[in-house]
Amino acid sequence: MVTLKEIELAHDRIRSFIHRTPILTNKSLNELSGASLYFKCENFQKGGAFKIRGATNTVEQLTQAEIEKGVVTTSSGNHGAALSMAVTRRGGGTKVVMPNNTPKIKINNVERNGGEVVWCEPEQSSRESVLADLVEQTGAIVVHPYNDERIVAGQGTCAKELMEDEPNLDMIICPVSGGGLLSGTLLAAKGMKPEIMVYGAEPSEADDAYRSLQKGEIVANETIETICDGLRAQIGTIPFPIIQKYVDGIITVTETEIIEAMKMVWERMKIIAEPSSVITLGALLKSKDKFSGKKVGLILSGGNVDLNQLPW
Amino acid sequence: MVTLKEIELAHDRIRSFIHRTPILTNKSLNELSGASLYFKCENFQKGGAFKIRGATNTVEQLTQAEIEKGVVTTSSGNHGAALSMAVTRRGGGTKVVMPNNTPKIKINNVERNGGEVVWCEPEQSSRESVLADLVEQTGAIVVHPYNDERIVAGQGTCAKELMEDEPNLDMIICPVSGGGLLSGTLLAAKGMKPEIMVYGAEPSEADDAYRSLQKGEIVANETIETICDGLRAQIGTIPFPIIQKYVDGIITVTETEIIEAMKMVWERMKIIAEPSSVITLGALLKSKDKFSGKKVGLILSGGNVDLNQLPW
Repeated sequence: MVTLKEIELAHDRIRSFIHRTPILTNKSLNELSGASLYFKCENFQKGGAFKIRGATNTVEQLTQAEIEKGVVTTSSGNHGAALSMAVTRRGGGTKVVMPNNTPKIKINNVERNGGEVVWCEPEQSSRESVLADLVEQTGAIVVHPYNDERIVAGQGTCAKELMEDEPNLDMIICPVSGGGLLSGTLLAAKGMKPEIMVYGAEPSEADDAYRSLQKGEIVANETIETICDGLRAQIGTIPFPIIQKYVDGIITVTETEIIEAMKMVWERMKIIAEPSSVITLGALLKSKDKFSGKKVGLILSGGNVDLNQLPW
Repeated sequence: MVTLKEIELAHDRIRSFIHRTPILTNKSLNELSGASLYFKCENFQKGGAFKIRGATNTVEQLTQAEIEKGVVTTSSGNHGAALSMAVTRRGGGTKVVMPNNTPKIKINNVERNGGEVVWCEPEQSSRESVLADLVEQTGAIVVHPYNDERIVAGQGTCAKELMEDEPNLDMIICPVSGGGLLSGTLLAAKGMKPEIMVYGAEPSEADDAYRSLQKGEIVANETIETICDGLRAQIGTIPFPIIQKYVDGIITVTETEIIEAMKMVWERMKIIAEPSSVITLGALLKSKDKFSGKKVGLILSGGNVDLNQLPW
C-alpha cells in the first residue's frame, strides 16, 4: 500500500511541473453552510485538473525506452490531457481512449497537449477492450488513470498541500470515481493528521464506491447517467482497499444537488469548477449537521466544462 | 481634479472594508497574445465588482445626518449593490434606480445587501428622471455611480494596488463606461509611473467615450445595444476631462470580439468575469501589435453574470 513517504517523494518529483494551487474561502458559502470552507482549487491546476499530479509522477518514473514505445490510457478527459502533457515533455507520443460523449473542451485539451484521441463507447467494457487492442497493436506502455500506485501517490500531493496550508482542518471532502484522488487524499491527510475525517462525494447516479463499501467488495456501477463526466469510472482494485480502510463515509449526491452546488460556486466564488468537483459542496450542503461548525477542506478537482453544454 | 494623494487617502479609508484582489496570470493567454498579461481580478471583490471601492469611499465621508436621510442612486447593478453594502453597514437605507433589463444576479445583489430597487427604463433620460423624482420625494442623498470625485478617487485604488503589486507594467487596459474607473486608473497609474500607457476599452455599440474624445466634447451614445450591461452609461462630466488629459487611446470592441474574449477567460483562466470586464482582453487581442512583448495590466472589473443568459 502507498505510504505518506511515497506521497512526499512524489511531491518532490513533480513540484516543478505543477502549480501549487490556491485555497479559496467564501464568506457567503460559509454562512450558508454553517461551516468554514477551504476550497483547494485544482481547477486552476495545469490542464485544468488535479490529474497532472499522478500522470507526472508516473511518467517521470518511466525509462527513456518506455517513453519511446509510446504511452496509452483510457480517460474521461482530464487524465488524458495531463498524461499527454507529461509524455510530450519527455518527447514521447500518447494515445488516449476516450468515450464518444466526452465534452469537447476535454478532447481539445488532449489534442492541445500533443495527445491523439482514440474513440470508444461510454461503457467501461468498451474502454477496456479498445485499450487492450491498442496495446496489442503497438506495445505501448499503459498508464492507467487511477489503478496504479504511482498515480495514487501523485494525486495524494493535492491533499498534502491542503494540509500544509490549512493544518487546522477537521474534515476533507473529496470526489470519488476510480478512487485515485480519494485514496491519495486519505493517505496524505490521515498520514499527516490521524484524527482528520475524510469523506468521499459520489453521484447517486454512479454510486459504485458507496455500494462497494457497503458490500465489502467491488461492485459495478448500475448507471453512469450523471453530469459528472469525470466520475463515471469504476472503482479500482488498488484504491479500493485504501478507501475501505480509511474513509469515514461516502456521501451520494443527486444530479439536482450537484447542479445547485455548481451554480453556487460559479455565482458566489466567481470560479469555473466542473460538476465532478462541485459535488463536494453538494455533499456538504446535504449533510450540514455533520459539518456544522467545522473547518472543512473541499477538493475542487477540476474546471474543464463545455460552456456550450451547461446543465441549467 | 482628483490627485494621487486623494486616491491614497481613499485607500486608507476603505482598506478594511474591501478585498485586496489577486492578480492572475495565464500562460496560454500570454502565448496567444504575445504579451505578458496581469489580470487584476475585481470579479473576486466584495459584491463581485470594483464598485465597492468608490461607494465605500463616498459613504464613509457622509455625516450621520446624511446617512439617516437615506441614500439614492442610479445603477446598472454593481454600483447599486456596492452602495447598499456600504450604506447598510452605516445603518442607513438605500434606493437604487435600475433599468428593467438588468440581469437578475445584479438585482439580487442589491437586495441581498439591503438595498431597495426602483425600476426605470434602460435609457439615460429615464434613469435621471426617476432619480430626480425620488430625491424630490424623500430628500435623500444622491451618490452618483461615477460623476463624483469621491467615487473617482475610490475607483483609483484598484490601479494603485495593481501598480504596487506589479510595478514593472508598461501598459494598462481598463473598461470605460461613465468613466469613474478609467479616470481613477489614469490618475493612480500615471501618478505613480508617468511613463505608463493607459488605454480604455469600450463596446463599439456604446462608444460615447471614443467619439467624445474625437470631438473634444461629450457626445451621447447612439446605441447601447451591447451585452456589456455595465458599459451602457454616458461618460460623466467629472471623469471626462481627466480622460481627455491622460488617456493614450480608447479601443472599441465588437460584440463578437467581447464574447470570444469572455470564452477565453472562462475556459483558460477558469474564472467568471462579466462581458464588461473581459472587453479589456478583447481590446488587447484586436490590437496585438500595440501590446506585443509588453507587460500589460488588464482590469477585470467584475464577475456578475446571469448564468441563465450566457451570450453563447
